[in-house]
Amino acid sequence: MNDSADIDSARSEPGEVGLVEARDFVSPEPFTFESGHTIPGFTLRYETYGRLNAARDNVVFIAHALSGDHHAAGIHALTDRKSGWWNNLIGPGKAVDTNHYFAICSNCLGGCVGSTGPSSPNPTTGRPWGVAFPPLTVRDMVRADKRLLDHLGVTALQAVIGGSMGGMRVLQFGIEYPGFVRRLLPLATTARENAQGIAFNAVGREAIMQDPEWHRGEYAKGGGPRVGLAIARMMAHITYVSDASMEQKFGRKKRGANADAAPFDAQYEVESYLQHQGQAFINRFDANTYLYITKAIDDFDLAGAYGSLEQAFHGVQARTLNVAFTSDWLFPPDQNREIVLALLRAGKAATYAELATDLGHDSFLLDSPQLYDLVHDFLAAPAN
Amino acid sequence: MNDSADIDSARSEPGEVGLVEARDFVSPEPFTFESGHTIPGFTLRYETYGRLNAARDNVVFIAHALSGDHHAAGIHALTDRKSGWWNNLIGPGKAVDTNHYFAICSNCLGGCVGSTGPSSPNPTTGRPWGVAFPPLTVRDMVRADKRLLDHLGVTALQAVIGGSMGGMRVLQFGIEYPGFVRRLLPLATTARENAQGIAFNAVGREAIMQDPEWHRGEYAKGGGPRVGLAIARMMAHITYVSDASMEQKFGRKKRGANADAAPFDAQYEVESYLQHQGQAFINRFDANTYLYITKAIDDFDLAGAYGSLEQAFHGVQARTLNVAFTSDWLFPPDQNREIVLALLRAGKAATYAELATDLGHDSFLLDSPQLYDLVHDFLAAPAN
Repeated sequence: MNDSADIDSARSEPGEVGLVEARDFVSPEPFTFESGHTIPGFTLRYETYGRLNAARDNVVFIAHALSGDHHAAGIHALTDRKSGWWNNLIGPGKAVDTNHYFAICSNCLGGCVGSTGPSSPNPTTGRPWGVAFPPLTVRDMVRADKRLLDHLGVTALQAVIGGSMGGMRVLQFGIEYPGFVRRLLPLATTARENAQGIAFNAVGREAIMQDPEWHRGEYAKGGGPRVGLAIARMMAHITYVSDASMEQKFGRKKRGANADAAPFDAQYEVESYLQHQGQAFINRFDANTYLYITKAIDDFDLAGAYGSLEQAFHGVQARTLNVAFTSDWLFPPDQNREIVLALLRAGKAATYAELATDLGHDSFLLDSPQLYDLVHDFLAAPAN
Repeated sequence: MNDSADIDSARSEPGEVGLVEARDFVSPEPFTFESGHTIPGFTLRYETYGRLNAARDNVVFIAHALSGDHHAAGIHALTDRKSGWWNNLIGPGKAVDTNHYFAICSNCLGGCVGSTGPSSPNPTTGRPWGVAFPPLTVRDMVRADKRLLDHLGVTALQAVIGGSMGGMRVLQFGIEYPGFVRRLLPLATTARENAQGIAFNAVGREAIMQDPEWHRGEYAKGGGPRVGLAIARMMAHITYVSDASMEQKFGRKKRGANADAAPFDAQYEVESYLQHQGQAFINRFDANTYLYITKAIDDFDLAGAYGSLEQAFHGVQARTLNVAFTSDWLFPPDQNREIVLALLRAGKAATYAELATDLGHDSFLLDSPQLYDLVHDFLAAPAN
């Protein structure tokens, strides 16, 4: 796929990815983190959707956000009630059209859904790494992902796409492997975590680390600071949605009266909804990974790392489409626009699109035909 | 003071309130809460600034917010490094000019700084009330405050002024005692706590109640869920400021390197600032009071309570000046404007003023000559 001539500009009727299976890539060579720490090797769990072409260059890499994982599309069993987290975007005839593209999504390095992270065994002790796991950066994640792509024999990425922290990974990919990546699709993201973002993450980490079950990160699998992690998630969830969307969905609606309710039990629907979000999260996520990944987000600052944003983008060869959402107050339009302005000042091909939504930061994950069209058309148009 | 003719329209050179002493008003008569629960009596701790005139009608009542108390101005000892929380607004020659007005501020019913609340002894058991304290509403606070005013022989309020929950108390005062209140000055507030506001308060309550030291509200004075309360405060503090103000004050500034730092110890200044906010708070505030007062805020809904906002304001006789702040995202301008629009639709005298600030919700507490002028002039102008 050296050009886009063989891609229909119109999408076919959307279909489903269907059954998928996660695989493990085990990198046997040592991996040195940005911090200088080296681990003997690592595992990345990943999924793929579509078929790799003969040239091995019809690849779209999907970069998940803080709480995401490798299961981006399809189902694992016919009884699954939910599909992967970006199933609405990825599939035959969808915006990331798996009739044309081979999409790959990995659980990031440091993650807790099959990839090597703080809950993996520390080869020195046999017990989970905990906070002895090396400090982690977005660039570490990207460098680990590149090993997976090399292992799969991928010769070029048609695009890297992701929102929120996924968008940070997208930008870092374009900087780190300029000749390898044709298109960058950062969504609802920032080139530099700001003070308010750090503040919210810091409170989440505090809730985890102050939970007496945290034990400085040394807890048994499935145990640990579940209460603290739930509180971190409840708070963070508020930042993923918007004032307007919460008002529309819940307003001041109360739950049915419960004669057994204790004082201060959840009385409003929004309260029990948040509690549910917290409870669901602790059953699928590891608290130490939450610490590592939020810290990687906090430390993300391209201008700081490269001297300026223009210098960070100096070597980028890919064409960029950055999509922001008007109601996103975590990574608001301004922070996205800044990315595109810096790319343009650096002489790169970059476009900024702002979609009017009420749904807040999570807009990038939600059903949005406008977003699908933008992504589809950007993938179909010639790259650099 | 039946009219404002005796008030200079220009302020004199501002002076200081100076030394003040808190007093306790003990209401010996039973008090019945909105919920129907009755307590045998209650105490309100309060301070006054200025002198009550012979007609006992030169009174401005100061209504504090969630974490405020009766110490609004002046100092308690010459060695005090900090004055009361609204010292910039209250004093001789200041916006609430104590050369003319007698200002009164009480710790609200349910509070923890001298007034009767969940940390006070339950007369039945001799131990603190804890969550056996009756459910509390903003209207309960206002009705208790009125008893204090009656006890002091106050015949009329020239104004009630307050921001945030203080603004809710202001509105409720105007509704509950229409013939008694001449002017309402609600700032940075809402007539109806919305879903996002409830959500943040709910996470704070969760952090407190999930702290193993909470013990369903039965803890010793000075003990209790200090960790949970600190986390609640850290999170809430983010909602009191703004993205822009945090960025300006902290940005991504890091603390000095600390060789003894453990992984995930606060590294950014904004992190340690929030930790400091949390720690300072738990030394002066009671966790159960935090539960009661946030719940009173969540339950505040004038339209819900009276059928509509217009009906809520139907009997209001006071003139209203509502001040909103552009950077306030907790109770944003729209929610304030709604109050004034409803007052106007109900045929009342009401003015809306919006001040451009970067400082977020807490703008109402901060040094703002524009705010001072608005308050001063509104107090000096004829009331209804």
